[in-house]
Amino acid sequence: MTDKPKSITASPTREELSYRLGNVRDLMKVENLDYYVSFDPVNIYYLTNFANNVHERPFLLIIEREGIPKMVVPLLEKSHVESRAIADLEYSNYYEFPSPPGKNWYDVYPKLIDKDKKVGVESAMPLRIYEKTPGVKIVTDIIDELRIIKTDYEIGRSVHACKVINKGHKEVLKMCRPGVPEFALYQKVTGIMTSKTIQDIPNANFIVCKATAAVWPPSFSHDPHIIPKIFAEMENGGPHVSIVYAQVDGYGVEIERTFFLGEVPQEAKKPFEVMYQARELAYSLLKPGENMGEIDKKVRKFITDNGYGDYIIHRTGHGLGITGHEAPFLAEGYDRKLEPNMLISVEPGIYIPGLGGFRHSDTVLITEDGYLKLSKAPEKLDELVIEL
Amino acid sequence: MTDKPKSITASPTREELSYRLGNVRDLMKVENLDYYVSFDPVNIYYLTNFANNVHERPFLLIIEREGIPKMVVPLLEKSHVESRAIADLEYSNYYEFPSPPGKNWYDVYPKLIDKDKKVGVESAMPLRIYEKTPGVKIVTDIIDELRIIKTDYEIGRSVHACKVINKGHKEVLKMCRPGVPEFALYQKVTGIMTSKTIQDIPNANFIVCKATAAVWPPSFSHDPHIIPKIFAEMENGGPHVSIVYAQVDGYGVEIERTFFLGEVPQEAKKPFEVMYQARELAYSLLKPGENMGEIDKKVRKFITDNGYGDYIIHRTGHGLGITGHEAPFLAEGYDRKLEPNMLISVEPGIYIPGLGGFRHSDTVLITEDGYLKLSKAPEKLDELVIEL
Repeated sequence: MTDKPKSITASPTREELSYRLGNVRDLMKVENLDYYVSFDPVNIYYLTNFANNVHERPFLLIIEREGIPKMVVPLLEKSHVESRAIADLEYSNYYEFPSPPGKNWYDVYPKLIDKDKKVGVESAMPLRIYEKTPGVKIVTDIIDELRIIKTDYEIGRSVHACKVINKGHKEVLKMCRPGVPEFALYQKVTGIMTSKTIQDIPNANFIVCKATAAVWPPSFSHDPHIIPKIFAEMENGGPHVSIVYAQVDGYGVEIERTFFLGEVPQEAKKPFEVMYQARELAYSLLKPGENMGEIDKKVRKFITDNGYGDYIIHRTGHGLGITGHEAPFLAEGYDRKLEPNMLISVEPGIYIPGLGGFRHSDTVLITEDGYLKLSKAPEKLDELVIEL
Repeated sequence: MTDKPKSITASPTREELSYRLGNVRDLMKVENLDYYVSFDPVNIYYLTNFANNVHERPFLLIIEREGIPKMVVPLLEKSHVESRAIADLEYSNYYEFPSPPGKNWYDVYPKLIDKDKKVGVESAMPLRIYEKTPGVKIVTDIIDELRIIKTDYEIGRSVHACKVINKGHKEVLKMCRPGVPEFALYQKVTGIMTSKTIQDIPNANFIVCKATAAVWPPSFSHDPHIIPKIFAEMENGGPHVSIVYAQVDGYGVEIERTFFLGEVPQEAKKPFEVMYQARELAYSLLKPGENMGEIDKKVRKFITDNGYGDYIIHRTGHGLGITGHEAPFLAEGYDRKLEPNMLISVEPGIYIPGLGGFRHSDTVLITEDGYLKLSKAPEKLDELVIEL
């Protein structure tokens, strides 16, 4: 795949979702399972197009080797499921949580599974559901595993989602000036991204839409997972680090840049350059067959050899899909090879207290012979110094 | 408590959080537990004031009978935890997910628990965490149980949160006209609520802030859990049903009303009246000592006796706290008595396909001798007909 795949905004077809279900069943055969039970709302969305917010009323999807999957649904939500699901489902409703004896979800659910059979369950399943699940239970993340390799349809949706964040990030760089507060950035940029989302996808499901935009100014950009206060202000110089993330009707993507307002402090030039080169090294290794743990190891070694080993605090990258953080991982200890149609972030970082953080991140598709960046913003230092 | 409790916007004190921890330890003694492990981000927030978004890098809080609680934290997040936690914590960091062998969370975590001891774990704990938890494990929801009875501080925060939604709901009624689309309502009303939140609480933690405002027009208000499309429009007449929900820096509250634009269709008058009277009946039963399952049963009976039994699709109410849906429940089958300082919604509903939905909801505090509505909006039919 050398050309950029086409952007898609349409809902998935029944064929697309039935293909995914077929893949689940293929893996069930390999693992010799009679049933697979999904509780994780992300996995249920992946197979049905129905998204739920997890609360005390559980939704459970029960897949057998053949036939129509069964779904345990609170009575109140039946028409909600029907309005969004693009898949045949056989509903088993329960009344409420809690319900009178005999009418609870845990009265309805176990009857759907033969207690002598082998039942695959997700490692994310809560104990309260696990305890009520009959059968010989085997913990295995079949759907999570399948989600690692994207279908062409998913890739088209991610291409579109990247258009949304690319537009958002452009605005970040346009409006960033010393003194601009976080809340102004957040409000304007998320507004732009939300507007584009609803213009492009008028029936977008807001349960699986999110938009975030924030900038870490140099006084705390060394600390990438602190949450900025809403009145924190952009500063002179840098490094500032932006995060623009969106889940666009079910497709999560990100773009992040290290940039400067007016001037680049002398002491920031080397770490920027090392981060930039570490990133180039990572990209040079992005092709099918490369071991993902080894890529992270090599990138860390490069940063360490250049004097910043003490300032690495996270892996080189993570998978993206329905969520913003998921398998696969560019992380030491993750022993798996890159394959075409994986979607990952590439974001080696250097974080120096007193100076700031240095990180670019992109949403990147692994192709047959390398990679393709789906997100887009300036990358070079001279393009990332905003004139005041 | 007859006067309305004072509104609070300040962060909790160390004493407040240490009181909550003491309560956990008291219950640990009762249940003869040596450790209690919390994974649920809501429970960790309740005890520490630190909020996290769940992802593949787990946070785990380990409480012993005495001493400083231990927290397993990804390296990347340590300063984030420190910046928000209002409690002494002993940190055990792990590198990343995944990490090289020996450096993963599941290498660090089990060492903190003596394998011969009794360990309480939450029923919401994912299997992947449960499997790595040593000791004799007992599933018990101690923190969820404690959260049912609010402290005076929590009540003060909920009083404030209700001011936010009351303001939001006032705007809903002000701007609702036939033809106004959902997205306009959503944007304006959530904007007003978010602005008030950050004005009142400049250091609000946005991980535990949410704002939602939507109206179900009569063409689908019979279906309360369908998610409205963003271009759906308000209609003539009614019943329209509003939902205004906010989590205001960690305190979730709701207000909902059935209202009409211009005119009340003749056939809507009786169901409105029955809903209104069912609600009055529920309120008349709200006092310490009343069985919560029985209240729901009586309310259902009243609605059924008045001819709408087939149109009940949910319980009379649910608890509110950090989340918008939690224990306790006004639901048949929930055998528990009301106690002072519970915070619940009261919202019996009638849903008639082809006519629409009828439901008011309020956030209500149980007091020593009855109840106090913390949310506020017009309730009577004639106050809820908006002149065009």
